[in-house]
Amino acid sequence: MQTLNQISLAETLKARRERLSQLIDLPVILWSGRSSARNFPANTYPFRASSHFLYFAGSPLENAAIRLEQGKLTLFMDDASPASALWHGESPARTAIAHQIGADAAYPLAQLQTKVEDCATVLVQDPGTHEWQTQVLNRAIAIAPEAKGIDLALIHAIATLRMSHDVAAIAELRQAVAVSIAAHQAGMAATCTAKTEADVKAAIEQVILANNMTTAYTSIITVHGEVLHNHHYHHELQARDLLLVDAGAETASGWAADITRTWAVSGRFSPTQRAIYEVVLLAHDLCIATMKPGIEYEAIHLTAARVIAEGLVDLGILRGNPTDLVEMDAHALFFPHGIGHLLGLDVHDMEDFGDLAGYAEGRTRSDRFGLGYLRLNRPLQAGMLVTIEPGFYQVPAILNDRDRREKYGDVVNWERLAEFSDVRGIRIEDDVLITATGTEVLTVALPTNIEAIEQLISGN
Amino acid sequence: MQTLNQISLAETLKARRERLSQLIDLPVILWSGRSSARNFPANTYPFRASSHFLYFAGSPLENAAIRLEQGKLTLFMDDASPASALWHGESPARTAIAHQIGADAAYPLAQLQTKVEDCATVLVQDPGTHEWQTQVLNRAIAIAPEAKGIDLALIHAIATLRMSHDVAAIAELRQAVAVSIAAHQAGMAATCTAKTEADVKAAIEQVILANNMTTAYTSIITVHGEVLHNHHYHHELQARDLLLVDAGAETASGWAADITRTWAVSGRFSPTQRAIYEVVLLAHDLCIATMKPGIEYEAIHLTAARVIAEGLVDLGILRGNPTDLVEMDAHALFFPHGIGHLLGLDVHDMEDFGDLAGYAEGRTRSDRFGLGYLRLNRPLQAGMLVTIEPGFYQVPAILNDRDRREKYGDVVNWERLAEFSDVRGIRIEDDVLITATGTEVLTVALPTNIEAIEQLISGN
Ligand SMILES: [Mn+2]
Ligand SMILES: [Mn+2]
Repeated sequence: MQTLNQISLAETLKARRERLSQLIDLPVILWSGRSSARNFPANTYPFRASSHFLYFAGSPLENAAIRLEQGKLTLFMDDASPASALWHGESPARTAIAHQIGADAAYPLAQLQTKVEDCATVLVQDPGTHEWQTQVLNRAIAIAPEAKGIDLALIHAIATLRMSHDVAAIAELRQAVAVSIAAHQAGMAATCTAKTEADVKAAIEQVILANNMTTAYTSIITVHGEVLHNHHYHHELQARDLLLVDAGAETASGWAADITRTWAVSGRFSPTQRAIYEVVLLAHDLCIATMKPGIEYEAIHLTAARVIAEGLVDLGILRGNPTDLVEMDAHALFFPHGIGHLLGLDVHDMEDFGDLAGYAEGRTRSDRFGLGYLRLNRPLQAGMLVTIEPGFYQVPAILNDRDRREKYGDVVNWERLAEFSDVRGIRIEDDVLITATGTEVLTVALPTNIEAIEQLISGN
Repeated sequence: MQTLNQISLAETLKARRERLSQLIDLPVILWSGRSSARNFPANTYPFRASSHFLYFAGSPLENAAIRLEQGKLTLFMDDASPASALWHGESPARTAIAHQIGADAAYPLAQLQTKVEDCATVLVQDPGTHEWQTQVLNRAIAIAPEAKGIDLALIHAIATLRMSHDVAAIAELRQAVAVSIAAHQAGMAATCTAKTEADVKAAIEQVILANNMTTAYTSIITVHGEVLHNHHYHHELQARDLLLVDAGAETASGWAADITRTWAVSGRFSPTQRAIYEVVLLAHDLCIATMKPGIEYEAIHLTAARVIAEGLVDLGILRGNPTDLVEMDAHALFFPHGIGHLLGLDVHDMEDFGDLAGYAEGRTRSDRFGLGYLRLNRPLQAGMLVTIEPGFYQVPAILNDRDRREKYGDVVNWERLAEFSDVRGIRIEDDVLITATGTEVLTVALPTNIEAIEQLISGN
């Protein structure tokens, strides 16, 4: 058996383009993108190449393009100017990079213009590159979910390929996961001395930086887990708070991890925190236990919804039959988001395609409050990496909404719920690889059970 | 005397607009900008508002605009949607923000269109906002250095204001400096156990993150200081290396620090490292000693050039008369950049104006190799904050350049230079506030002398 070390980057990329050429018989040009300016042009954000480019070029080259046709790879980029060497040091030449990534030919960017006929492409996020794409191809390039014709055909082909990770991708994903696990452990260990959310963030991101990686997305590190996309870190930690941490690293070539843990600031969950946490953890465990190729991801989501509804009935927070409660979306009062999403080069993998990757052909988002936020709706298949991230939140905008309070007035025991006021937000998120026969939880080394988490916090 | 705590944000902003209205009699609209997408639209870079907007609005509001006219402030922004509250929590309402920043009126963005007549503006970096500006004002908005007419008049007025920092600005700058100093100290203390540049970067940026600040620019943390804009962190630290660290924090409202220190990985400078460091430090100290209002910044640069030339003559690396050597730009073989730049809301303050802020009217960049990279060329004035950052580098692209080796063949003692091979790059950078009578070095608490730095590394 060939081990990973024996598979060169060039071989991996060759296999990817050959699979692409089996799916579509079109020449393709993919652009890497440009860095964007912060304050003034010379002060740029760290460059992050387009994920589609990274998948086929393997390297975060700035201001570059590749052409793929019948398994052949052509690289287009300019060599650095002599003045650039003064400020940025010697850069590898185009020919050296071409060799490393196994390109069949390499040209300056000016040549790109001459090889564009009938080429499909994918829109790159930064507007400067979008304009460049439009000029070079001399036609409009639509935002991916609105793409038509050859661009749409390309999107479906890329989605098919990137949906199922190859050995090299999985090796990168494992690296991102390993560093993310160490980062969460550092965050847990730092909690006892941390004064603010920012202190824990610093401990977590220090690990990511020390491994020469970046965060794959803006970390969520908050005692207000009920604010789902919370990017503030100024709150002081109080002993009765739960801290929700959703943070993941990204390798140099762009592969992401996405992990959430929720822990007690004091190092000891209160009885109410423990009770809800166990409900969320049971949903998490049962979801993963049922996953294997062929299972519908929506069914996994509904499993989580049912387990959460059952747990809340058992705790006296919801009233009624769990199946009925899920059908009326009562679970979504407390679990308003989807059970997870694809993970790969993007933290929501291929979300620039809208739902063209996440949803099987012919499927569209549900109108139901309890299903509409699901980002993935297709059968699981081997090689897919998905997150499983059930949660419980007391979101004021949901629970104080007059229409919802009326609709769900009878099924929620509001007085009982008030006893759980120290549980604002809990989420447990793991990264689950679908194997031929079941799953491998890549993030399994980071415990989810309360006892082990309490030990990591206290350092015992 | 009024202390800073008694000066409210609203009063500071009012004083800034009143000074603006004394300089130009024009209505002005400034846009804050938008965050840019990373991989896919929902994954954005942390938002950084336009510095000109921050100066007059005081708060990093996303997707907002302000109108300034005769000292009056009008805020344009939309309240968050109810759906946004679900994901992002409750946001302060437009009216609450308007009150906080002392706005005279506040409207939804749709109203902006009706108040644009004869308004000057400054182009915002992100292309989406540029397009929005163009639509709203219904005219082309040029990149700042190419601005004409009322936009150019506005640039000169803003440059005049932002050139001289008020009490509130200086208080913010001091906060950025204090955190940056603590960050450098953490980097020094971490060096003895660090394996790679990334380990030191992590220790430095942990301090910045824990203080809920961001880096003002991409940190340079490198054992290859001769690569001036080095944004790689993968090198292992070797005992004989010098580590060059150029890193600064930025406060939540955008005010930046910019500090460089260079230290020995082993904790002990070698004799050759010490010798060159002392030359750079002498240049640094003499520059600062001569600074006061009225002194030309170019003269400070030439002071540094002369001291470095003298030092290198004394060390036997250069041959000849230091004054002649500077006139022939021989200093620039080893000190190829300018002595510093303006510092404020941008790390190169107002560099989006090209040289319209940095260069006095009528002055342009020199063709000389030893002067052309100077970013600031005007007389110093009270309230200005500038960096002083002399350096010594052995840049292969300069020293191996055939033309330069010919031109400077006689004045460089190449054999002697080879003895200094363990000195690839040294820079010492402080942030110097010009006072009425001289200077205050805001960064003075971070030592520059070798003995104190060696102590910080060894922890004694
Ligand atoms: Mn996730
Ligand atoms: Mn600087």
